[in-house]
Amino acid sequence: MHLWYTEYQTDNIGLSFKIKETLFVGRSKYQDIAVLDTFEFGRLLVLDGLVMTTERDEFIYHELITHPALFTHRCAKNVLVIGGGDGGSIREIIKHDNIKEAVLCEIDPIVVEVSKRYLPSLSSELENPKVKIVYKDGINFVSNFRSYFDIIIVDSTDPIGPAKGLFGLSFYRDCFAALKDEGILICQSESPIYHLDLIQEIQTNLKRVDFPIVKFYYGIIPTYPSGMWSWAFASKKFDPLRDIQEEKIKNRKFLTKYYNLGIHKAIFNLPSFFKKGLG
Amino acid sequence: MHLWYTEYQTDNIGLSFKIKETLFVGRSKYQDIAVLDTFEFGRLLVLDGLVMTTERDEFIYHELITHPALFTHRCAKNVLVIGGGDGGSIREIIKHDNIKEAVLCEIDPIVVEVSKRYLPSLSSELENPKVKIVYKDGINFVSNFRSYFDIIIVDSTDPIGPAKGLFGLSFYRDCFAALKDEGILICQSESPIYHLDLIQEIQTNLKRVDFPIVKFYYGIIPTYPSGMWSWAFASKKFDPLRDIQEEKIKNRKFLTKYYNLGIHKAIFNLPSFFKKGLG
Repeated sequence: MHLWYTEYQTDNIGLSFKIKETLFVGRSKYQDIAVLDTFEFGRLLVLDGLVMTTERDEFIYHELITHPALFTHRCAKNVLVIGGGDGGSIREIIKHDNIKEAVLCEIDPIVVEVSKRYLPSLSSELENPKVKIVYKDGINFVSNFRSYFDIIIVDSTDPIGPAKGLFGLSFYRDCFAALKDEGILICQSESPIYHLDLIQEIQTNLKRVDFPIVKFYYGIIPTYPSGMWSWAFASKKFDPLRDIQEEKIKNRKFLTKYYNLGIHKAIFNLPSFFKKGLG
Repeated sequence: MHLWYTEYQTDNIGLSFKIKETLFVGRSKYQDIAVLDTFEFGRLLVLDGLVMTTERDEFIYHELITHPALFTHRCAKNVLVIGGGDGGSIREIIKHDNIKEAVLCEIDPIVVEVSKRYLPSLSSELENPKVKIVYKDGINFVSNFRSYFDIIIVDSTDPIGPAKGLFGLSFYRDCFAALKDEGILICQSESPIYHLDLIQEIQTNLKRVDFPIVKFYYGIIPTYPSGMWSWAFASKKFDPLRDIQEEKIKNRKFLTKYYNLGIHKAIFNLPSFFKKGLG
């Protein structure tokens, strides 16, 4: 028997994975959750029928959503991750010795449970004493803080279902308020090939909440729609190119498989169609 | 009726396009050829069941296989493209006023014929008086030249079937001989995600034929396997970063949709796993 899983990335494009085994299929209060073991990309986490992450290429997404901010901020101590229940972002954050507290605010406890059980290479630091997990809606949670976090990372699903508000103006306003004066907000911002209109909207909203620095960067994630992915870098003080901590990157004691000094400098140089789309 | 075309990018991964219409299906002396009209990526050229190029994302491949070399070389006049019968590379080369002669050596006349008929936005410059088309095996063709070309671009299909020899040592040796003392050779070098072993082999071969400068660069092509694609930059004199012609890039009179000065500098900064793979 040949079992295949297909994600329809748009109405007209499908990416199909040949499956060894279905490890978990279930439904939480919020969404359908599945873990499939694929031949090409290792284990695959699927939420509401959408590819969230795979063991083989997750390193690209998780290194890029974390290290550019962590190697720009002078001395981040408190970081908040909204979403990201698989634990991949937390794993990368914890590599930085300066981090005292990493809060993971995931709405769905089943995602964390499933990841701990089936995706150990992602969830490996979720039990770290520096990590606090709260099972709450990130939109409400972040609104309780004032000048508390150094970095907030929005590691959300696509802007449908529970994650929709994570792309809105009032959420960004609350993130701004929850950040210290030197704070940085990173938001995954979808595919520049398919969602340039959404990226423009994110840019407009981030500028409206008064972040003086709003930039976008990109990377290649084979299992995400179009393979090209982007993140917004919104910052109160530090610029990811001007304030890049070159020595700290060069002397870091941990390994990265995608991120390095050259990549940090390169990923803010956007292809012309992407720059043009930003206006 | 919903018609879908699926390319199996590996044994375990398929990319599927929803099809509006089958415009051409045929067989030449060398290969199966099809042109499909897709909903998401416009017209799609398929050779031997493999995605060659689509109207929507071809600009990335064709800008990246041409402009980095053309904006590094001081004054390229004669360029040879091997393969590339769709005409996309020739179209980009012809944008450079310094080019006096662009030779397209395509083994299969039917590819050119089909592209002229069904892919007018790619083949638009194939009738340009500066362009000479020869229908020959590139491996034999290039062996007839000594110090003639400024730039050779190997715009080949995957290293199976007629294109296999285009990745071999003796072909690279002939390219070296066919290039002038300031010559540059560009070769498409497949996906770093799936074919890092092949890329290593290309690097080894290019260094063995005495190119003093051998570098790799990469870009994102949504319809190619893994979305991450690479090219080898082998050069007798000019370095793509040291000798980049910034003013010429800034003052160019033609539009590009992916390539720009920042991209030129960025694409040689490889992700860590790619660098490590090169040794």
